[in-house]
Amino acid sequence: MGYGYRGKVLRIDLSSGRIEVETPDPIIYRRYLGGSAFGLHYLLKELKPGIDPLSPQNMLIFTSSVLGGTPLPGATRLSVLGKSPLTGGLGETEAGGWFAPELKRAGFDAIIIRGRSDRPVYLWIKDGKAEIRDASHLWGKLTGEVSDILKEELGDNRVRIAQIGPGGEKLVRYAGIVNELHHFNGRTGMGAVMGSKNLRAIAVRGTQEVPMYDPERAREIVRWFVQEYYKPQPGDMHDLGTSRIVKPLSDAGILPTRNFREGSFEGAEQISGERMRDTILIRRGTCYACPIACKRIVKVDEGPFKVDPKYGGPEYETVASMGSLCGVNDLRAVAKANEICNKYAVDTISCGVSIAFAMECYENGILTKEDTGGLDLRFGNAEALVKMVEMICRREGLGDILAEGVRRAAEKIGKGAERFAMHVKGQEVPMHEPRGKKSLALAYSTSPTGADHMEAPHDPALENLGPEAGDPLEPLGLIEPMSSLEFTPRKVKAYYYCQILWNLYNCIDMCDFVGVPLGPFPINKLVEYTQAVTGWDTSLWELMKVGERAATMARIFNFREGFTKEDDTLPERLFQGLEGGTLKGEKIDKEKFEELLELFYQMYGWDPKTGFPTRGKLAELDLLWAVE
Amino acid sequence: MGYGYRGKVLRIDLSSGRIEVETPDPIIYRRYLGGSAFGLHYLLKELKPGIDPLSPQNMLIFTSSVLGGTPLPGATRLSVLGKSPLTGGLGETEAGGWFAPELKRAGFDAIIIRGRSDRPVYLWIKDGKAEIRDASHLWGKLTGEVSDILKEELGDNRVRIAQIGPGGEKLVRYAGIVNELHHFNGRTGMGAVMGSKNLRAIAVRGTQEVPMYDPERAREIVRWFVQEYYKPQPGDMHDLGTSRIVKPLSDAGILPTRNFREGSFEGAEQISGERMRDTILIRRGTCYACPIACKRIVKVDEGPFKVDPKYGGPEYETVASMGSLCGVNDLRAVAKANEICNKYAVDTISCGVSIAFAMECYENGILTKEDTGGLDLRFGNAEALVKMVEMICRREGLGDILAEGVRRAAEKIGKGAERFAMHVKGQEVPMHEPRGKKSLALAYSTSPTGADHMEAPHDPALENLGPEAGDPLEPLGLIEPMSSLEFTPRKVKAYYYCQILWNLYNCIDMCDFVGVPLGPFPINKLVEYTQAVTGWDTSLWELMKVGERAATMARIFNFREGFTKEDDTLPERLFQGLEGGTLKGEKIDKEKFEELLELFYQMYGWDPKTGFPTRGKLAELDLLWAVE
Repeated sequence: MGYGYRGKVLRIDLSSGRIEVETPDPIIYRRYLGGSAFGLHYLLKELKPGIDPLSPQNMLIFTSSVLGGTPLPGATRLSVLGKSPLTGGLGETEAGGWFAPELKRAGFDAIIIRGRSDRPVYLWIKDGKAEIRDASHLWGKLTGEVSDILKEELGDNRVRIAQIGPGGEKLVRYAGIVNELHHFNGRTGMGAVMGSKNLRAIAVRGTQEVPMYDPERAREIVRWFVQEYYKPQPGDMHDLGTSRIVKPLSDAGILPTRNFREGSFEGAEQISGERMRDTILIRRGTCYACPIACKRIVKVDEGPFKVDPKYGGPEYETVASMGSLCGVNDLRAVAKANEICNKYAVDTISCGVSIAFAMECYENGILTKEDTGGLDLRFGNAEALVKMVEMICRREGLGDILAEGVRRAAEKIGKGAERFAMHVKGQEVPMHEPRGKKSLALAYSTSPTGADHMEAPHDPALENLGPEAGDPLEPLGLIEPMSSLEFTPRKVKAYYYCQILWNLYNCIDMCDFVGVPLGPFPINKLVEYTQAVTGWDTSLWELMKVGERAATMARIFNFREGFTKEDDTLPERLFQGLEGGTLKGEKIDKEKFEELLELFYQMYGWDPKTGFPTRGKLAELDLLWAVE
Repeated sequence: MGYGYRGKVLRIDLSSGRIEVETPDPIIYRRYLGGSAFGLHYLLKELKPGIDPLSPQNMLIFTSSVLGGTPLPGATRLSVLGKSPLTGGLGETEAGGWFAPELKRAGFDAIIIRGRSDRPVYLWIKDGKAEIRDASHLWGKLTGEVSDILKEELGDNRVRIAQIGPGGEKLVRYAGIVNELHHFNGRTGMGAVMGSKNLRAIAVRGTQEVPMYDPERAREIVRWFVQEYYKPQPGDMHDLGTSRIVKPLSDAGILPTRNFREGSFEGAEQISGERMRDTILIRRGTCYACPIACKRIVKVDEGPFKVDPKYGGPEYETVASMGSLCGVNDLRAVAKANEICNKYAVDTISCGVSIAFAMECYENGILTKEDTGGLDLRFGNAEALVKMVEMICRREGLGDILAEGVRRAAEKIGKGAERFAMHVKGQEVPMHEPRGKKSLALAYSTSPTGADHMEAPHDPALENLGPEAGDPLEPLGLIEPMSSLEFTPRKVKAYYYCQILWNLYNCIDMCDFVGVPLGPFPINKLVEYTQAVTGWDTSLWELMKVGERAATMARIFNFREGFTKEDDTLPERLFQGLEGGTLKGEKIDKEKFEELLELFYQMYGWDPKTGFPTRGKLAELDLLWAVE
């Protein structure tokens, strides 16, 4: 079989309307697998550095992987890549759902989009064919409406739709792309890029079987996972969803609260996964082929914050960013904020952080009622929160400024507002606290997409990096437990290995909740499964090297766009002690951070002077082409 | 099971006569496995830098591995480490045979020897117990004699004996250690170190079973190997031994001939594996648990070069170093030279290269009959060759100078002799030609033991690095064939990966002829086997990292002893064109070499300015302790 996996890539030029189907050399699959590395391979080859991310020159790449569409739980994610209008560097984001498997069943591994249509359009892909269609009737509509119209129009209820909402149309810089109304490519503003291209949606339908080299062996592993390995239990991801960690994090002092001033939230119980289960939860949702079903479907029928279950329910990130981070303890308000973001297809993390930023500005007199349109934008005001979310999604009033992200908003507002702007490289910090989970200091500062919890391990469970023997991480040789607060060279090493692994996940489009480190899936089984699907006699060595390759490609991309090692830093607040909560006073020591960052560079083969990969490392990863 | 493999280490202090048994922390096994890394771990912790290698301060470490003594063909090697009297840097050498498995069956993974006995002694180890015994009656005797005496004296014919010969007693700087009279720890002069300690032999007998975590799974892999995988065929290692490559190498222009002046030898057929099989071969020999049986047993009854089959027969290295390298086409003379080296326990490679050096000096008038004791020491003189071997082993006349190795001999002789001294870091170049197998330029220049073919891949088969799909190297991601003469960044990458793998072999004490790259054993099977034996949920990633760790530890060791990056070079001759043979004119381009060497450093995480591992790389490999 060798490197014989074969697939197809769909190329769309929205300016000319040209549609092409490309058959990449099999070695491209072996070297890049899919997702992150596969997309970066095209970006580095074809995207001109220095272009405006919202111009027709930008590319927008949707990609699955060599495992996509096969029955392994978790191997289901959809990566979207382009140049980010939020950071000016790499835009990359992954979503669960059904879109990627459907794309595979339609015969494609990826879609590469360029140009700009002169009118709103959508893309209709079915079984190896694609068509650009008018979308004038969809423009301005909420995501739920568009979904209904398209299914009707295409006469097929099983069509899978990835779309932007009015947020993306209005170029909210952190607008996302949503599939099936509640699976989000949330971060780095890929929805704005799609909006700038006048592309409202992609509908896909595939009826072909996704071929596997050794289907029997592959299915045996899936059976083992479903029957023997994943055992639902109270308090787990199925039972409580991602919000299961709200209370434990607050207790541990690492639940981001009031714009990262504090780490414990007095209202944690009220916005917890348990509370959600016992009140507004009506169903659990899932992704293609996954028995875990971590997704929430919530409904609120009465009161000021009615919520339509069509739009799913809030994840942990949303609960924290709209809840504790804004000091809001009203779960219904949080669910409403989530619903609005989903209707408009806007990233809940950046949105919540932008509002928390505005709240702190407001409490410090930097913003006034005049700026907020009369809203009393103090921490804890649930009504103001929900109103502000809507204003951002519609770019109304202060919302128009906050829709630019906190970095640009702080610049515009001035008066020292930047000290409350929690971002790295322009992207807002997600809901994990580096002062209590020290490896996040490396994660946030070096992630190519700016502060990002999907580019690097971040779970508190994992923060006993490495785990006890018998743990899924054992095959990496991470066998000595260490504490979350430890910040030493061995933590850097453990983080580095996990970071490569997560990069690999972003290349095989594996869900972090199913795969290790977060979930239960043993790495060696994943290697076996990859062997079974592709027929390659591959190994964890080769696969981890794809992870390293992806990280290195992202680094090259950002440096081409003008980033330097000076951009690998953290908001000043994180170098100061937490002002409240269990870990009050805990901080990132700046000197230690700089020392360990240098070690991290060296582990990756990046020159600590420049932060750029050495020529030897590029040669090792077959990436010299990308700098020549 | 975690990192729960447990074993024992025997510590002997020959000065005080103290014997101790140590039980290392299980993590030591997981991190170092055995062999190279395991030994280096003790050397770096306990050996004072700067000591005289022939002083009592030197350590001599015999080590097997976590796989030693289990039934996998090839996992049978014995590593011996110490500071080398030949190079002044790391001494390390591996031998096949039965000694290591027997040591495991006696309950030990390793023996650490220090000090110096005030009289000749030998060590007797049986089932967990050890004893230092008088060896006055053995001193001065040939290896075969000592073997007979000890088996008689210990009353057990199944005792396994590793010993030095009169060569080690006389501190020939490249004296080796031999077990079962024809399995050689040949290189880096560990026999001289043993001689300097007045330790003539170690006899071991073990009757315990070597425990395995999952014996059934382990035996299944062994069965698969023996029944399904290894199929003897004409022309293979079993049929022709390692000398099967003599003719192909000569045809390809890469058989070292007349002190590396040429690459094809007109007498190749006469010293070939085929000729050996058809004339002097009487039996094939093997190592513990191996069905391949690549070893030769030869016998010559008449003529000037009678050979006793007790001492086995010449390997390829010997055939080339005593044959083509000295211009000698008489296979019987070569076999005789081999027999003498085995009787005296002297490394045939360094011995042959030293004689070829002397021959070239002689032909250039730098040495005369006066120096040679009347011998007409020209290339091709078989009788002079055999005589000279004996003189070296006994340190007689010119032999006393050549017993110092070519670097020291050239210094002593002067008159420009150093241009004929084929060595790196003081160790003589083995029988593989970098000008025709380009990655050897990296191998020889960077090997921690000086020019060495067991520290890095060197086989012509492998020089199509990486191989076609389906090859055992596929799990490394080396899937694109390349030519032997290519010398480009991608060759460096392929070499780097193979080099790590070979380092790993030296840690699990796996034979290069059974394991990949040379042999047929798929890497992934080896990982599975390691899992079965140890119970660790390990992976190729973790194991390769042990290989990297070993290489990095060796680097640290040498730098502590004063080596710098300036020592990573080649004899000047290799930068000049071959003077004859199929590849006449082919050379290593010096500029290219320096460029690629820098890439190689960077791949390994070595600072190209200093050649020393970066702090980040040391942290990644858990080696900061070794520099603090």
